[in-house]
Amino acid sequence: MIEDALQLAAQGRTLSPPNPSVGCIIATADGTVLGQGHTQQAGGPHGEVMALRDAAARGHSVVGATAYVTLEPCSHHGRTGPCCDALVAAGIGKVVAAMADPNPLVAGQGFARLRAAGVEVEVLAPTDPQALAARALNIGFFSRMVRKTPWVRMKVAASLDGKTALPNGVSQWITSPAARADGHAWRARASAVLTGIGTVLQDQPRLDVRLVPTPRQPHVVVVDSGLQTPPNASLFIAGRAVYIYAAAQNAEKQRALEAAGATVIYCPGHHADGTPTGKVDLAALLRDLGQREINEVHVEAGHKLNGSLVREGLVDEFLVYLAPLLMGQGSGMADFGPLTELSGATALQFTSIEQVGPDLRVLAQVQGRDQF
Amino acid sequence: MIEDALQLAAQGRTLSPPNPSVGCIIATADGTVLGQGHTQQAGGPHGEVMALRDAAARGHSVVGATAYVTLEPCSHHGRTGPCCDALVAAGIGKVVAAMADPNPLVAGQGFARLRAAGVEVEVLAPTDPQALAARALNIGFFSRMVRKTPWVRMKVAASLDGKTALPNGVSQWITSPAARADGHAWRARASAVLTGIGTVLQDQPRLDVRLVPTPRQPHVVVVDSGLQTPPNASLFIAGRAVYIYAAAQNAEKQRALEAAGATVIYCPGHHADGTPTGKVDLAALLRDLGQREINEVHVEAGHKLNGSLVREGLVDEFLVYLAPLLMGQGSGMADFGPLTELSGATALQFTSIEQVGPDLRVLAQVQGRDQF
Repeated sequence: MIEDALQLAAQGRTLSPPNPSVGCIIATADGTVLGQGHTQQAGGPHGEVMALRDAAARGHSVVGATAYVTLEPCSHHGRTGPCCDALVAAGIGKVVAAMADPNPLVAGQGFARLRAAGVEVEVLAPTDPQALAARALNIGFFSRMVRKTPWVRMKVAASLDGKTALPNGVSQWITSPAARADGHAWRARASAVLTGIGTVLQDQPRLDVRLVPTPRQPHVVVVDSGLQTPPNASLFIAGRAVYIYAAAQNAEKQRALEAAGATVIYCPGHHADGTPTGKVDLAALLRDLGQREINEVHVEAGHKLNGSLVREGLVDEFLVYLAPLLMGQGSGMADFGPLTELSGATALQFTSIEQVGPDLRVLAQVQGRDQF
Repeated sequence: MIEDALQLAAQGRTLSPPNPSVGCIIATADGTVLGQGHTQQAGGPHGEVMALRDAAARGHSVVGATAYVTLEPCSHHGRTGPCCDALVAAGIGKVVAAMADPNPLVAGQGFARLRAAGVEVEVLAPTDPQALAARALNIGFFSRMVRKTPWVRMKVAASLDGKTALPNGVSQWITSPAARADGHAWRARASAVLTGIGTVLQDQPRLDVRLVPTPRQPHVVVVDSGLQTPPNASLFIAGRAVYIYAAAQNAEKQRALEAAGATVIYCPGHHADGTPTGKVDLAALLRDLGQREINEVHVEAGHKLNGSLVREGLVDEFLVYLAPLLMGQGSGMADFGPLTELSGATALQFTSIEQVGPDLRVLAQVQGRDQF
């Protein structure tokens, strides 16, 4: 049942940000499903309420039934009422949850509220594969709640020998249409797509979701120290925010970009001695994105910005598409270093390896980054 | 039955070079196994004779039985008598073969000889997965028979971002002990391990099989244009040949290397206008290795020699271990190019992807290279 609830939650993943997507199945003791649902868009009902409504619409009583949920039901009044209260009011007898809320400030409050109302509560062990899957599903939300910064996933498309562009800059297309569509599915679940001014100027990207259906376009974040983004850039698309982070103030350029729909944020970096670096402070940028309710950041940038993000230890996960090609010379994935010892390399752990069309998709997490 | 015969053949793969490894199972119509075997070391019996001997040792008659073989039985007198004659003499009623001999000069002669003696013959379709597996098992032998050159498999150990060494040369160890042991298993099936003088001087490698058991050590081939291999190099190991290919003649160095056990081969390259390149002619080197009965060449070299081999289109297959690391800057897998268009990239096809310990093992063939 939890597995089915996870599938429901996955369906809501592109819809729910900045909220977590929660799946809920209400069933009798013998496994008859009475109702099911997942979190709707922000401000809309959570998964538990959708499942209760579904059961009611089907004419089923849920008194004494079990609710299977992918996350501890909420106990606070946000844009909607607490799910705990709705479950109690409907007469649910038992709740099976894949995981507790990882935010230490609220963890266990939902379970306590249910138990206080006489509802039996069962929670999977944190190492249970389904608990891990539930965590991965909303990793960005949990990151923002606990660390106050988004989960940063860096997407790279490269040849098997790790080249992302030929020496003359040619990079379209290294990977296949199947891999590019898969990449759009990852864009769709992100709250924002982050890129650098170099990519904006060279490729004029839209950075929206086109190759898979989506109910929502991710916002766009541009690291643009010198405010060079053209106000007519392709990434200005109705219905989403464009955040431009700059290191230098320029009232005229800022006005033009704001007229185009951008939000310009002054976020200069400083050396240890206090002198300005002339570049955007990337760690501060991520803290600011956390405050703007950005859960998952999907990075699609060039090897220089990629290198800065890796060097500063700001990347949590890599989504790498490897094409069956050798390109010899060219740009790499992330230009950092030079290292002098292998112990200085960024240590990863492969979490998923799949063939996507003729290409290979590798998911790898930076070791220790999900310990929050 | 063919699948079991393939497993027998795989057992003989490190033993049989320069012969192909053939597996044979002799069974009754109801599937009772009467005898089985695989090819022994060169000069020893082939798989069919081993299976006949096994059945005799068990006291079984094979009259009217079926022999399942992974390759068309030989019809010629080499170091041993023809297997066809042995099967006919034993009274075998039917032969099921995974594939015909790919050498156009002998293909079908074994089957014709069997049929002429009244033995029923069945051959798998060339696209049958077991036929493809049988071909892959002895791809080096088939390459040498048909193309007159070995099958060239290039082994690379790299970080996920395609780096094989840090800028200061540090490369030990990028991959895990599990991946290194797997790499030794691939060395063991090769007829020879090929490297460059740069690797010999920098790493003092033995390039033998130590991490897995083997009945035979592969020969060693050094591309050493200037005859710089030290006569006391670690790769001089009793019981195997060391072939040193040079572009310049030097009688004194040659005598010292020959005294150490090497065979020195003068193999200079020339530009189109006939002037010497000062480097070894790599294509001629491979033709020479074919004449020396080298089936599979296992390349473990640096990015420069790797680049030359790729640039000249001499590599058939890549065996790439990717460690869960990002190294940023450093040497790549194969230094060729610069290309100006992606259509000039070396097009591969992934044939196998497996996790080996914490690392990823990718097998990729150069497109079209197995069309012989």
